[in-house]
Amino acid sequence: MQVMSEIRQNIATRQWVIIAPNRGKRPEDLQSASRPERELPDRDANCPFCPGNEHMLPGITLEVPGPGSDGWQTRVVPNKFPALTRERNPRRYSRDIYKAMPGYGQHEVIIETPRHDQDIPQMSVEEVKTLVETYHKRYVDAMKDDHHMMTIIFRNHGWQAGPSLLHPHSQLIATGIVPRAIRRREEEALRYFDERGQCVFCDILAFEIRDRRRVILENDTFLAFVPFAAEVPFEVWIVPRRHQAGFGEISDEEKAGLAYALREVLAGLHSRLGDPDYNYVVNSSGRHRAGEPHLHWHLRIRPRLTIPAGFEIGSGMAINPSIPEEDAAFLKAVGAPTE
Amino acid sequence: MQVMSEIRQNIATRQWVIIAPNRGKRPEDLQSASRPERELPDRDANCPFCPGNEHMLPGITLEVPGPGSDGWQTRVVPNKFPALTRERNPRRYSRDIYKAMPGYGQHEVIIETPRHDQDIPQMSVEEVKTLVETYHKRYVDAMKDDHHMMTIIFRNHGWQAGPSLLHPHSQLIATGIVPRAIRRREEEALRYFDERGQCVFCDILAFEIRDRRRVILENDTFLAFVPFAAEVPFEVWIVPRRHQAGFGEISDEEKAGLAYALREVLAGLHSRLGDPDYNYVVNSSGRHRAGEPHLHWHLRIRPRLTIPAGFEIGSGMAINPSIPEEDAAFLKAVGAPTE
Repeated sequence: MQVMSEIRQNIATRQWVIIAPNRGKRPEDLQSASRPERELPDRDANCPFCPGNEHMLPGITLEVPGPGSDGWQTRVVPNKFPALTRERNPRRYSRDIYKAMPGYGQHEVIIETPRHDQDIPQMSVEEVKTLVETYHKRYVDAMKDDHHMMTIIFRNHGWQAGPSLLHPHSQLIATGIVPRAIRRREEEALRYFDERGQCVFCDILAFEIRDRRRVILENDTFLAFVPFAAEVPFEVWIVPRRHQAGFGEISDEEKAGLAYALREVLAGLHSRLGDPDYNYVVNSSGRHRAGEPHLHWHLRIRPRLTIPAGFEIGSGMAINPSIPEEDAAFLKAVGAPTE
Repeated sequence: MQVMSEIRQNIATRQWVIIAPNRGKRPEDLQSASRPERELPDRDANCPFCPGNEHMLPGITLEVPGPGSDGWQTRVVPNKFPALTRERNPRRYSRDIYKAMPGYGQHEVIIETPRHDQDIPQMSVEEVKTLVETYHKRYVDAMKDDHHMMTIIFRNHGWQAGPSLLHPHSQLIATGIVPRAIRRREEEALRYFDERGQCVFCDILAFEIRDRRRVILENDTFLAFVPFAAEVPFEVWIVPRRHQAGFGEISDEEKAGLAYALREVLAGLHSRLGDPDYNYVVNSSGRHRAGEPHLHWHLRIRPRLTIPAGFEIGSGMAINPSIPEEDAAFLKAVGAPTE
């Protein structure tokens, strides 16, 4: 039977998404299409992120102690090939009829563990919490620079997702630019707030908790769900239940809640979909004041099971070959991970 | 020596792009990173687009005669797994707190040649002109449906670019949605026009023709160049020199000029970069009136030599590891293709 397609709107951005299940495969098929689990050694002599290879690093910005014999759990290091650096002038200038600015900004790597083969699903919740704390420390530090309008923390997992090294790591980029897509997201959130007097993410949270069809996991502080207008198969948003504009506002209790939810969701993707490649990104509001009523940070996970092609590139509109409610049911079946 | 990065603005959309040459490789390295040329048979018994396999097609919408023994050069067929179909109600509705609409629209495949192994660089200019004419016929047809607000013609070349079949083909999708990215592009073009009294693309054309650093090819009707704020290595825009809002307005002479420019640029990518995967898309203005002063259609080619990762996904802002002026010089060195 051919399932009918539907075009759905992401009410936080007013972007539309084509949900076209007849084009694609069922979750089971996407799973088998993905690559087998990676077999990595626990230490790699050529990996600059492994202990003992510190001479291969351009420096160490921060080290967070850990229980293991290496003495650290997370390390923050400058990106060796930075897209942006702070040794530049942050001012914009004209170039002929165009506009440009030097590549001013901050670009660093967060090494998540000394162990080359220890991905987030294999970490304890406590270790993931240390990672979240490291994210928070670096986020707060980056936003101290008045030239930085936006700080993005992201993780690329698996070759299809674009990393240059497989040792578990995340990255942080801060810049003086507010990209159009982010400005647009904020404008739409403000527009929604002006119309309804409510934060759009708070409305979505309240509805999804009641509706349950797309919920994967709920704890005291976070909700993980497949969004109504998911752009890719098994897209998951992890959203703080308490209203908060920026990632800088996360509380200690919430750090633990995020660590639990993040590990659980990634363990689910790993076990049910055979360790798919994915990107995740902390969508945070940047320089806005704490308590801003219309903005609400969240973490967005996008598995790389499909390839965006010419239509998506030309229109900026996604075609998702799977049904968000089915994806959620498939992931929800995962039990709590063992500690 | 480390080349300094620069952040450049696309003045047609006001989107910013990070040009970060120290992260990446030189054109020669990107070339060697790409896959070897494809060896395809001229006919494939399992390919539904090859002559003799018409029973594998869901139907034939249009056939344009050609000189070969097959009697046709291009064929338009419905997409067998359409993202959208016209057998639906085009009205939007509410679903709980969300908005959605049935997957109304048009989705078809343009088979470019009977020959399984004849890609655009191997076609004659006359054959490419027939392809452009087929694009135009189907574009005009799709825009006759008052429910269609946008018609996108695109081509996915090579597995990294997302096609499900390698037989040379393009696709057309028409929908009642104007995606946010396109609405934004049009708003920015209008804003530029209101400020300057000029079409932003006409201004860019005039400047690039004078400046020459990014020009790859120029003929009486089209200019092909690497844009100042290219989002990916070897991105090329092919822009009609005469102001025209929509692809529907292209003249017969311009069809020939586009065919020549398109074939030349793709032949250059093929020979200099070892047949890289790419997507191209005709960015056209949709339902606007002919002669609209601020809009200007163009064809955009995006090679898939790099992988957009978490930062790009989270910010909507590209990091391009190559320098547009160098990319243009590298492609410009290609001579005219042999007929």
